[in-house]
Amino acid sequence: MSQVDAKLASLGIDLPTPAAPVANYVPFVQTGNLVFVSGQVAVGPDGMVTGHLTGGDNDGTSGTLAKAQGAARLCAINLLAQLKVACGGDLGRVVRVVKLNGFVNCSDGFAQIPEVVNGASDLFVEVFGDAGRHARAAVGSSSLPRGVMVEVEGVFEIS
Amino acid sequence: MSQVDAKLASLGIDLPTPAAPVANYVPFVQTGNLVFVSGQVAVGPDGMVTGHLTGGDNDGTSGTLAKAQGAARLCAINLLAQLKVACGGDLGRVVRVVKLNGFVNCSDGFAQIPEVVNGASDLFVEVFGDAGRHARAAVGSSSLPRGVMVEVEGVFEIS
Amino acid sequence: MSQVDAKLASLGIDLPTPAAPVANYVPFVQTGNLVFVSGQVAVGPDGMVTGHLTGGDNDGTSGTLAKAQGAARLCAINLLAQLKVACGGDLGRVVRVVKLNGFVNCSDGFAQIPEVVNGASDLFVEVFGDAGRHARAAVGSSSLPRGVMVEVEGVFEIS
Repeated sequence: MSQVDAKLASLGIDLPTPAAPVANYVPFVQTGNLVFVSGQVAVGPDGMVTGHLTGGDNDGTSGTLAKAQGAARLCAINLLAQLKVACGGDLGRVVRVVKLNGFVNCSDGFAQIPEVVNGASDLFVEVFGDAGRHARAAVGSSSLPRGVMVEVEGVFEIS
Repeated sequence: MSQVDAKLASLGIDLPTPAAPVANYVPFVQTGNLVFVSGQVAVGPDGMVTGHLTGGDNDGTSGTLAKAQGAARLCAINLLAQLKVACGGDLGRVVRVVKLNGFVNCSDGFAQIPEVVNGASDLFVEVFGDAGRHARAAVGSSSLPRGVMVEVEGVFEIS
Repeated sequence: MSQVDAKLASLGIDLPTPAAPVANYVPFVQTGNLVFVSGQVAVGPDGMVTGHLTGGDNDGTSGTLAKAQGAARLCAINLLAQLKVACGGDLGRVVRVVKLNGFVNCSDGFAQIPEVVNGASDLFVEVFGDAGRHARAAVGSSSLPRGVMVEVEGVFEIS
């Protein structure tokens, strides 16, 4: 078991088996040492996390912010699952998480986009330590596939 | 005529002559073996395809989904036209379609974003076969340049 | 003083000292010769430029377009500040501005997204000349972090 797998186990994270692609796009493409992973949506063992955040969700009392952070974390778990396949099963080959783009399903007025995307960013640092620190853009989207609350895509350097 | 050009001809696609850039950005930049192509909008021989999709367009009966898929296909054709210039006219130099980002002009409630962007993804596989399979993110945008329905940008590996 | 620093001085631009990251993402990551810089928002000496553009801002008479272009220029200045750190203080190491993604906080109906993002694109060409010309995508976002009007991220090739 690699150090990364041990870390995942200690976090209680069991990476899902990635679904086979159902369209003409694929979960990831490697070019040189870079792996581009397709946008992963917020779906987990309990299904999809859907919803559209509004200004009323900014205060954090509605519980929606925590739900959205959990959704971002699910996206990160799904990125890890795809990345593991890209690494031939060995996440120890990950040199650096280079870039994440986080898209949050929300309206004008919802401003805590960075806090939501931290749900994904934090997991990468929990799992990879400093190699998990990444450049990032976090923006609002008017809608996302299937109505999911968060979508995150990533670029990774592997050995 | 390269194999790719022959494929384009068999699909009845006549790549447009890309417009010269009118601003301080350019249609593509190559760095190493990667070509980053600027976001291409849905414009074809009949002009721009504009419009904003809403929840009522999800069911597919309005005809708007098909229109949007056609718009995405136009974006892909425009990407190919720019890519051909990047390749010095020889699309046979394309090693791999690495990554597409598809932005769909829509409101909360429109969920068939992946189906729309498939209009672009499918064309790349029709033209390049397995080398056309790519990583992808597909998201909703509240608005797009000139009100176009779809914008797609791409990263390509060339030899 | 490098030629680039001289150019910045001639433009009256004093690059800010980038803030230390406050989360598990970082301002930039270098992989090979590419530097991915995190999405920078419109914040300057006078604070953040916030706001959401609507169809009524298209005509340019409201003054909002000029404000938005200024916001995009601030994003570009903040990208330059981070890029300078990535270059160990020497912006003369920048080989090429490869790619910018500009996100404009706006509603359906606001169509002048390219004009807004030109506020960022133009600065890179003012500073770097032809090496500042870049591939670009410009899209609308329903909301942006803290309600800022513009966010821009970038990919750069350095020596």
